[in-house]
Amino acid sequence: MLNPVEHMAAPAAARVGDTLADVDTPSLILDLDAFEDNLRMMQALAERHGVALRPHAKAHKCPDIALRQIALGAQGICCQKVTEALPFVAAGVRDIHISNEVVGAPKLALLARLAGSARISVCVDHPSAAQALSAALAQTGATAGVLVEIDVGQKRCGVQRPDEAVALARTLAGLPNLEFLGLQAYHGGLQHKRSIGQRRRGAEKAARQVRRYLRAFQQAGMPCPRVSGGGTGSALFDAAGQVYTEIQAGSYPFMDADYARLDWGDALLLRHSLFLLGTVMSTPTPERAIVDVGLKSTSAESGLPRAVAGKGLHCVAINDEHLILKADHARDRPSLGAKLRLIPGHCDPTFNLHDSLVAMRGDRVEAIWSISARGLSR
Amino acid sequence: MLNPVEHMAAPAAARVGDTLADVDTPSLILDLDAFEDNLRMMQALAERHGVALRPHAKAHKCPDIALRQIALGAQGICCQKVTEALPFVAAGVRDIHISNEVVGAPKLALLARLAGSARISVCVDHPSAAQALSAALAQTGATAGVLVEIDVGQKRCGVQRPDEAVALARTLAGLPNLEFLGLQAYHGGLQHKRSIGQRRRGAEKAARQVRRYLRAFQQAGMPCPRVSGGGTGSALFDAAGQVYTEIQAGSYPFMDADYARLDWGDALLLRHSLFLLGTVMSTPTPERAIVDVGLKSTSAESGLPRAVAGKGLHCVAINDEHLILKADHARDRPSLGAKLRLIPGHCDPTFNLHDSLVAMRGDRVEAIWSISARGLSR
Repeated sequence: MLNPVEHMAAPAAARVGDTLADVDTPSLILDLDAFEDNLRMMQALAERHGVALRPHAKAHKCPDIALRQIALGAQGICCQKVTEALPFVAAGVRDIHISNEVVGAPKLALLARLAGSARISVCVDHPSAAQALSAALAQTGATAGVLVEIDVGQKRCGVQRPDEAVALARTLAGLPNLEFLGLQAYHGGLQHKRSIGQRRRGAEKAARQVRRYLRAFQQAGMPCPRVSGGGTGSALFDAAGQVYTEIQAGSYPFMDADYARLDWGDALLLRHSLFLLGTVMSTPTPERAIVDVGLKSTSAESGLPRAVAGKGLHCVAINDEHLILKADHARDRPSLGAKLRLIPGHCDPTFNLHDSLVAMRGDRVEAIWSISARGLSR
Repeated sequence: MLNPVEHMAAPAAARVGDTLADVDTPSLILDLDAFEDNLRMMQALAERHGVALRPHAKAHKCPDIALRQIALGAQGICCQKVTEALPFVAAGVRDIHISNEVVGAPKLALLARLAGSARISVCVDHPSAAQALSAALAQTGATAGVLVEIDVGQKRCGVQRPDEAVALARTLAGLPNLEFLGLQAYHGGLQHKRSIGQRRRGAEKAARQVRRYLRAFQQAGMPCPRVSGGGTGSALFDAAGQVYTEIQAGSYPFMDADYARLDWGDALLLRHSLFLLGTVMSTPTPERAIVDVGLKSTSAESGLPRAVAGKGLHCVAINDEHLILKADHARDRPSLGAKLRLIPGHCDPTFNLHDSLVAMRGDRVEAIWSISARGLSR
């Protein structure tokens, strides 16, 4: 056989030193200058208000990014799943909050192993989950921190009333290998409200809920040192609101198309740093161009990606492997083989479609980072 | 250090011999009995009408599935991307049609290498793409088959008029290392029309378009032996319509929730074989349950997954890592830790989120198949 394909791996999308024109497509591209500005901006916001920043690594799933966030002053990171934490611990991250409920024996056994190598905390919203967690930790002898998750309006997980939270914290205090740290209060729904006023009012309403819980702990004589939560859309208000002790923002390094539709006023002017690079693979009519980006390389549940080039060019539909662009005039249509930068609709699920991230300094590939937690959803 | 996490891989979701209750979540599950019925049903349809079946491997990205389709009589497979073809060639598939335009030097170089190990064909809709393909093949000395893609109403790729197709076929005939095989005519839009009558009329309209092109080739005295296209939604009509020589259906082994919404009359009664297995991770209210399946384990652009259990339980929202279920009554709400089977909205992008497929025979894990082309989007 001429070509031993049995040993042929898919070629890498890019090599260090390549220019953007050399990068194969579809690829996920990071503009390092904009990315680093965004990292500094959020860290500065947190420091200005004396709260910790604990960036959410579910957004990027990339240890190289987490290490840079920590180097700039972040307290540690959040992960959303136990397996997701694994490559971050392996890369040397030593403080990880799993900002989610963990249910099931294999997951708890892995969490207990990780808790032997790093400071691990996790959310609990049910006494039986607390007991199972304690029992799993007892197997390895490790200890984990616990935040009681409270529902401040998202209507997802979390206890529903202050007395429930206090009772659960008492249960936790009585169980071995657990340390009650405080509360998690996250409101995903308000992160994406367009108007800055709506987000401010939503954040204030959530903060009032948190204060009700804090009063119940005070009345019960139980210390509740940590309140963790907040996101990119509400960080401005969460950091300033004197309720949260740490902010869990995840998307801020990237500024996807969904977040870019928000009104940001004159504060926290994050820059687009994350792009999809696509190639025009067909130009069947003078006004139509088809790009080789699809639902398998960008998520679209928060809207289509947005083409960076020219005002006369619009993404009109996306299929599994095709993005259909319509030009206002023939002169606005890119030619066959042209490469285009696109801003993804939603960064988190888009990172989860790629194994690597091409980190660019200007027009040069500076590094290729592994998205090591891609697909680690258990 | 107690736990050498540097060498800790994420534990496997299941082992052969496990029962469904042992499988960790979220996992992608295949019911082999239903799957094998579906494979036989579509193969029988093709054979009844004397057309070839060339299943689309973009749906599953899994060589173990492709080998079973071929063992039952499929002509070969389709892939949508050049890198996607790589694990199938490595697994021994020797006839692959890349049902898409391929543009860019790295992609063409890989295609030329693959064409040395397997019979490879590809779509072309522009003369300059034909020239670049020929030049890349000349570098390895291999030959590839070419289908001219024609636009039969999808408004995506493909030439727009019969005279364009004939002219492009003439160009192809004059270029070294290329063999003109015929036409590709695919209409994605009509696959998902609900009513069987709409799909029939749509398929007939597309077939009339194809006949216009075939007449132009006849008038030009050029043989056009192959017409490839069709999908799961229109296969009944495409197979019977005497225009297609091969059918490219992809989703038929699985029957996702989107296809299940279609009216199928009394023909081609495909069974659900593909499921997501999720765990109830939070039960914050008597009527609400949160499952550990999200946009990172199932695609939702064609609708939410559907819970198999009980009529009183509904998927109402999905986030990156959470699926929110609402029960009509407290008695319909599953309990904390319960495992649920869900039917994914759209199989293709869902397969692309998983590295492995848990193949079940009844309640037992019979095999774990690698979704080897997961993420191969270039």
